[in-house]
Amino acid sequence: MKRILTTLAICLAAVVSMQAQELANFQRGGGRVVSPDIQGDSVTFNFRADYATYVKLSGSWMPNPYGGSIDMRRGPGNVWSVKIPLPSPEIYTYNFIVDGVSVNDPQNILVQRDGSRFLNMLIVPGERTQNYTEANQRGTVSHPWYDSKVLGINRRLTVYTPYGYEANPKKKYPVLYLLHGAGGDEEAWISMGRTAQILDNLIEKGLAEPMIVVMPNGNGNQQAAQTLNLPTAPQQFDRNAFQSMPEAQRNRAMNGYVVSLCEEIVPFIEKNFRVIAKPEARAIAGLSMGGGHTITASNLYPQMFDYICPLSAAGSATPEQVAALKKAGVKLYFLACGDADFLFEGSKNLDKTLTEQGLDHIFYVSDGGHVWANWRLYLNTFAPMLFK
Amino acid sequence: MKRILTTLAICLAAVVSMQAQELANFQRGGGRVVSPDIQGDSVTFNFRADYATYVKLSGSWMPNPYGGSIDMRRGPGNVWSVKIPLPSPEIYTYNFIVDGVSVNDPQNILVQRDGSRFLNMLIVPGERTQNYTEANQRGTVSHPWYDSKVLGINRRLTVYTPYGYEANPKKKYPVLYLLHGAGGDEEAWISMGRTAQILDNLIEKGLAEPMIVVMPNGNGNQQAAQTLNLPTAPQQFDRNAFQSMPEAQRNRAMNGYVVSLCEEIVPFIEKNFRVIAKPEARAIAGLSMGGGHTITASNLYPQMFDYICPLSAAGSATPEQVAALKKAGVKLYFLACGDADFLFEGSKNLDKTLTEQGLDHIFYVSDGGHVWANWRLYLNTFAPMLFK
Repeated sequence: MKRILTTLAICLAAVVSMQAQELANFQRGGGRVVSPDIQGDSVTFNFRADYATYVKLSGSWMPNPYGGSIDMRRGPGNVWSVKIPLPSPEIYTYNFIVDGVSVNDPQNILVQRDGSRFLNMLIVPGERTQNYTEANQRGTVSHPWYDSKVLGINRRLTVYTPYGYEANPKKKYPVLYLLHGAGGDEEAWISMGRTAQILDNLIEKGLAEPMIVVMPNGNGNQQAAQTLNLPTAPQQFDRNAFQSMPEAQRNRAMNGYVVSLCEEIVPFIEKNFRVIAKPEARAIAGLSMGGGHTITASNLYPQMFDYICPLSAAGSATPEQVAALKKAGVKLYFLACGDADFLFEGSKNLDKTLTEQGLDHIFYVSDGGHVWANWRLYLNTFAPMLFK
Repeated sequence: MKRILTTLAICLAAVVSMQAQELANFQRGGGRVVSPDIQGDSVTFNFRADYATYVKLSGSWMPNPYGGSIDMRRGPGNVWSVKIPLPSPEIYTYNFIVDGVSVNDPQNILVQRDGSRFLNMLIVPGERTQNYTEANQRGTVSHPWYDSKVLGINRRLTVYTPYGYEANPKKKYPVLYLLHGAGGDEEAWISMGRTAQILDNLIEKGLAEPMIVVMPNGNGNQQAAQTLNLPTAPQQFDRNAFQSMPEAQRNRAMNGYVVSLCEEIVPFIEKNFRVIAKPEARAIAGLSMGGGHTITASNLYPQMFDYICPLSAAGSATPEQVAALKKAGVKLYFLACGDADFLFEGSKNLDKTLTEQGLDHIFYVSDGGHVWANWRLYLNTFAPMLFK
């Protein structure tokens, strides 16, 4: 009897909670609102708003995703809808605009954080996205912290260890250091970049070597993503002290994060994970600002990484720096950029320098610009080339 | 020159991105909108909405958080505001209601996911919340997957290892298994429950033993939180087959998740983490449905856990089951419930049974109901009593 009463109480709690949370998710007198609703080659967005004057849809597949939007139409039960042709396979973000205010889709639990913005995801299935959704065998994602003496703070990392890491306690793995861009943090590659899904799929299919992926926070003044509510270190930049430094010291100060990466994060990972601690088992890749960090790391530490992948990169290398990489015996230099990227000229210049110095490399030019669609594509493309 | 151009390009990108993302976050002709803005003993919420007819604030500190709300007033630059007395120290959730639609605060990056809802957090500082924000020494949070033969699916865990776990490779730790309630998943305790922050603070202050905390997904048909876009296993319940099972087999089938916890998750953790694999180093705690799982686990496996903590629990034990726990030598039975909780009667009944059977225990009665404020308080209260 007690058990029956308890069961009743749980059911009651579930109903109360459902009513509170989800009442607005039902059409009045109708079924549950579903959004986004992919059917064949179209997708319908639905949103219930009883008192709105207008509702629009804004999506990253639109020609001008930040300014563009299309009208939604009020239907039965005050459910506003719009049906559009399905965009080509990719992961897009979208939101509704209700009387001028940006609103997330309450029916869609798939949400990405881009800096301080939370946006719903639309995943259009197809060949392009097949490695962006969950594989059958999944690696472990963890968030260890390391103490940085260089930057004077305790800092959070994201680390992916592949499926089988726990079950094979004698096996050692190569490591990819994967760096985010400006506005990002240690969660950017794992959430927007779909790193775990891409690596899980590539490894499960036998296309990529099982590897560890380390995703640090690339903002030298941050302990962790802002969602953790940690203080940002105060800027204590002393211009006079900086300018009077010898050049080598000034370079270290200017590149504090890259110095911490190569002198602190790499040793921390090699101490705390089962890692092959050799250049031929270390890769570095990064997008935009992180592409700049990738180039800087390979310039300052030419013997550390045998695999170097600047993506839509903000950075350059001198002929002498490229020569040092050639001498160090770099095994892969994978330079990637979109042909509509505002940093494309810089990538072309770097390609030219690499060619002139005779450093064997790949210059992978894709469509499009400075967007996550490209960075997922690049990761999916170069990861199978690593450690082989 | 190249470097200067690249730097300019990055700055330009930052400005473009800032404009796109944050234009709406500035008052027209004024400063940046700040929200929530805690000043002394009041807090002001600010939200820019150019075309709204009305804006309201709804918060979990209100007497009726799901139905209640207060009006915000339109000010200069179409920034709607309301200033209220600061609620007592706690973590609250809130959202705005714009022309009838629920909207998150775009100025506040602190967001909690409760099931499928994303809500902003208001953290009011004070003694009650001092262990809910980040400590100086932080443990690692990871998400390994285990294969469940009992449930027939691969399932995601959340595991907290304390600060020092990596640096002390010979040290072994006790383990707390911490279970969520209905509507939750393996991220509930780490996000709404602030488990990492609470344990970090208690351990740093020397109040709790360094311990590992394992937070499984308590929905037997789920591989992982719905945010991972994994399929939910189809319900294949065969009533006739179930009813014709011998009682022992029926019990296992009915309690599939608890069986998986005790026969699969515990061994998985003891194999893959540095764990003291003994009853005196195992604790189990859970809230609501997870409190029911806690009671069921201790009923079915009375010799497995020496520390048992049902919180606002939906569950009961027979005199015989309590006698078995007493015989097994349970070291702590911590039963907690709010005096306004709809499950309070059940907890009082369980307290009575424990008393009648002479099982030494604590019945911790707090104010309030079936809410996270209580579950954080309970964790902060019983964690220091474990493994001592």
